[in-house]
Amino acid sequence: MIIHVPLRERAYDILVENGLLQGFSTEFLPRDVAVLSNETVAPLYAAPLIERLRAHSHRVLDFNAPEGEAAKNLEWVSRAYDALAEAGLGRSGAVVAVGGGVVGDWAGFVAATWMRGVRLVQVPTTLLAMVDSSVGGKTGVNHARAKNLIGAFHQPDRVLIDPNCLQTLPMRELRAGLAEVVKYGVIADAQFFAWLEQNADAALKLDSQAIAHIIARSCEIKAQIVGEDERESDSSGVRATLNYGHTVGHAIEATSGYGEFLHGEAIAVGMTVAAQLAKQLDVCEQADNLIKRQTRLFRRIGLPTSTRKLASFDKLWAAMTLDKKSRDGRVNFILPLRLGEVQLARDVAQNDVRATLESCAEAV
Amino acid sequence: MIIHVPLRERAYDILVENGLLQGFSTEFLPRDVAVLSNETVAPLYAAPLIERLRAHSHRVLDFNAPEGEAAKNLEWVSRAYDALAEAGLGRSGAVVAVGGGVVGDWAGFVAATWMRGVRLVQVPTTLLAMVDSSVGGKTGVNHARAKNLIGAFHQPDRVLIDPNCLQTLPMRELRAGLAEVVKYGVIADAQFFAWLEQNADAALKLDSQAIAHIIARSCEIKAQIVGEDERESDSSGVRATLNYGHTVGHAIEATSGYGEFLHGEAIAVGMTVAAQLAKQLDVCEQADNLIKRQTRLFRRIGLPTSTRKLASFDKLWAAMTLDKKSRDGRVNFILPLRLGEVQLARDVAQNDVRATLESCAEAV
Repeated sequence: MIIHVPLRERAYDILVENGLLQGFSTEFLPRDVAVLSNETVAPLYAAPLIERLRAHSHRVLDFNAPEGEAAKNLEWVSRAYDALAEAGLGRSGAVVAVGGGVVGDWAGFVAATWMRGVRLVQVPTTLLAMVDSSVGGKTGVNHARAKNLIGAFHQPDRVLIDPNCLQTLPMRELRAGLAEVVKYGVIADAQFFAWLEQNADAALKLDSQAIAHIIARSCEIKAQIVGEDERESDSSGVRATLNYGHTVGHAIEATSGYGEFLHGEAIAVGMTVAAQLAKQLDVCEQADNLIKRQTRLFRRIGLPTSTRKLASFDKLWAAMTLDKKSRDGRVNFILPLRLGEVQLARDVAQNDVRATLESCAEAV
Repeated sequence: MIIHVPLRERAYDILVENGLLQGFSTEFLPRDVAVLSNETVAPLYAAPLIERLRAHSHRVLDFNAPEGEAAKNLEWVSRAYDALAEAGLGRSGAVVAVGGGVVGDWAGFVAATWMRGVRLVQVPTTLLAMVDSSVGGKTGVNHARAKNLIGAFHQPDRVLIDPNCLQTLPMRELRAGLAEVVKYGVIADAQFFAWLEQNADAALKLDSQAIAHIIARSCEIKAQIVGEDERESDSSGVRATLNYGHTVGHAIEATSGYGEFLHGEAIAVGMTVAAQLAKQLDVCEQADNLIKRQTRLFRRIGLPTSTRKLASFDKLWAAMTLDKKSRDGRVNFILPLRLGEVQLARDVAQNDVRATLESCAEAV
C-alpha cells in the first residue's frame, strides 16, 4: 500500500507492506548510505537491511546509538557526524533511520544538518513511529532543559513501514502506540474511531489486516494534515490539531521525569483531560458520550485515563507554561467539538484546567 | 535602499543605509530577541543595537562567542543553545546575528535549529558578510574534518546592512571582501565589472556612494541567483555559479590550514585559475582579455593572483576531491564563457587543472 504525503517539491510516499524490509527495491537509494539505528533494534532490523543494501552494491556506513532517550541529545548527534565524516558520506548520500521515535528524531536531525541536509529514509519499527513520528518531517533532540528544543523540519524521501516489525515490540509499547491511533479518530475521523472500537482486540493480537488498516489510515490522516500546514505555521492551528492530548501529556512526561509514563500513556491521560475540559468549557457536542466512548476504548486497549497518580497541579501547570508550544505563559489546548473534529483553544484559564484535572482523578 | 530576495513564502528584504543601526525601526522584531555576536564586534555594534532594543521594550539576551573560526563549531552552537534555554527564548523569539561571516553562519545555524527554527535577522559588519554570506540562507559550522560540514538552509527574516560598520574593518578584510564583488561582475554583469575597474580606488577609500553601489549591486545579483535556485539543487547549476573561484579557493584554504589566506584572497587566486582553465579548455570568448582585466583589477585592489606559494598540486587536488561540492572524486569548476557569463563544467581532467595551476605560478 502506498500513501502519498502532498508537500509540493517535498512530496513523498509511505510504503506499508508486510515483509517490505526483505523485499524493497534499493534502487531509489544512492550508492552511499548511512544506516543509523540503536543497539537493540540493529541486530533485528538494521542488520538484514544492511546486508541487502551491500548485496546491491551500496556502500554502507553502520552506526548505532544506545537504546532510548539517552541517545537523543547533541552528544550523539556529534558522534554520528564523526562517523559520517570518517566514512566520507557526501552530499549525494542518504541517511536511513531504522528504529522507533528516538532513532527517527535523532537520525533525522543528523540528516537535516549534514552538509545542509542529505536525503533521509525513515524505517520505523515501533507502532508509535509508524503512525506518527516517522511522518511529517519533525526531527530533533532534547536539551537538558526540555524535550525537542533542538531540531529542524526535514521531510523524508520515503518511509518504509514493515508491520512485521511489530512482532518483537513489547506489548506495553504496542498499547502506547495505539493512543496516537485513537487520537486520529477523535481529531479527524469518527468512522475510524468506531472501527477501532470494533477492532481493538484484533489490533492487540497483531491481526495483520487490522494492523495494516490502522497504520494506513493513521498515516493518511497525518499526511493530509501535514500537507495543509507543513511547519505548524498556520495560525488557525491546522497542524496543531495533532497535539490533541499533548498539552497535559507533555506536562505529565516532564514532571514524571521521562520514563515512568510512555509517551502514548501520557497522551491517553492528556486526551481524557482535554475531552473533560471541552465539556467543562461547553464547546463539545454530546460531550458525555464522547468522553465515555474514548475512555472505554482506552481501557480496552489497556491505557491509563486517570490523573490520580500525577504530580501536583502547580507542577503540571508550570510544565504546561514552559512547553515550547506555549507563548508568553499562556496555555493552549486542542479540544474536541464532536467526535472527528477538534479546535485550537488559546489561553485557557488556569482554574478551568485545575477543575478538570481534579475531576479526572476519579474514575469516569 | 531595499533589495528584495524573491523566495515565495520565504521572501525577505535587505536594507542598506548609512546609519541604519542607529535608526532602524525595531517594530518588526518580537518581544524576545537573542543578539549573538563575538567579543570583538559586540562592543562596537551589538552594544548600541541592544541598547536601542531595550529602549523599545524588547527583552534581550546577549551572548558572544570568541572572535574568528574558533567559534564556528558544534561546541559554540551548544553553548548558544544553553544561553537560549537559560533565557527561555521561545518559538516566537528571534535571533539577531551581529558580525562577519563566522558569526552569521554560527548564529544562523543556531536560529535554524532552535525549536526547529526561529526568526533570524542578519546584521553583517564586514564587507564579505554584507555582499555574500548574510544573503542566501546558508548557515552552518565546521567539523574537525572540513569546513561547513554541519549546517542548514535557513533564510533570514531581514538583513540590515549599515555600510558605516566598514569604517572599523581592517584594510586587508576590505580588500578580501572585494574579491566576491569582482566575482559578481564576472559571473553576471560585465557592466558592473567595468564600473569596478573605474571605481576600485574610491571603494578602497570607503567613498560612501561607491560602497553603497557595490553592496546593493552585489546583493541584487546574489538575491536573483538564490531566488532561482534556493538550495543549489538545480542540476544546471544556477546557484553553483556563485562558486566561481571556489573550487581552487577552498582547496587553498584547506591546504594552508585556514588562516594564512583570507577567504577572499583564496578565491581571487581561485578565480585567476578558473579563468586560465577556461582558456586552456577553449570555452571562453576573448579569454586573454578577460584574464588580463580580472588580474589587473585584483592587483589594483591588492589581492593575490599567483599560485606560486601554494601547497603541492597533489595536496591541492586531494582537497578539491574531498570538497563537499565534489561527487565521487570528480572535480567541478565554474568557468567564464565571457565577461558576465559563466557555466558549470563537470569532471574536469586532472591534467588540465595541473597545467593551469602551473601556468598561474608565473605573473600573468
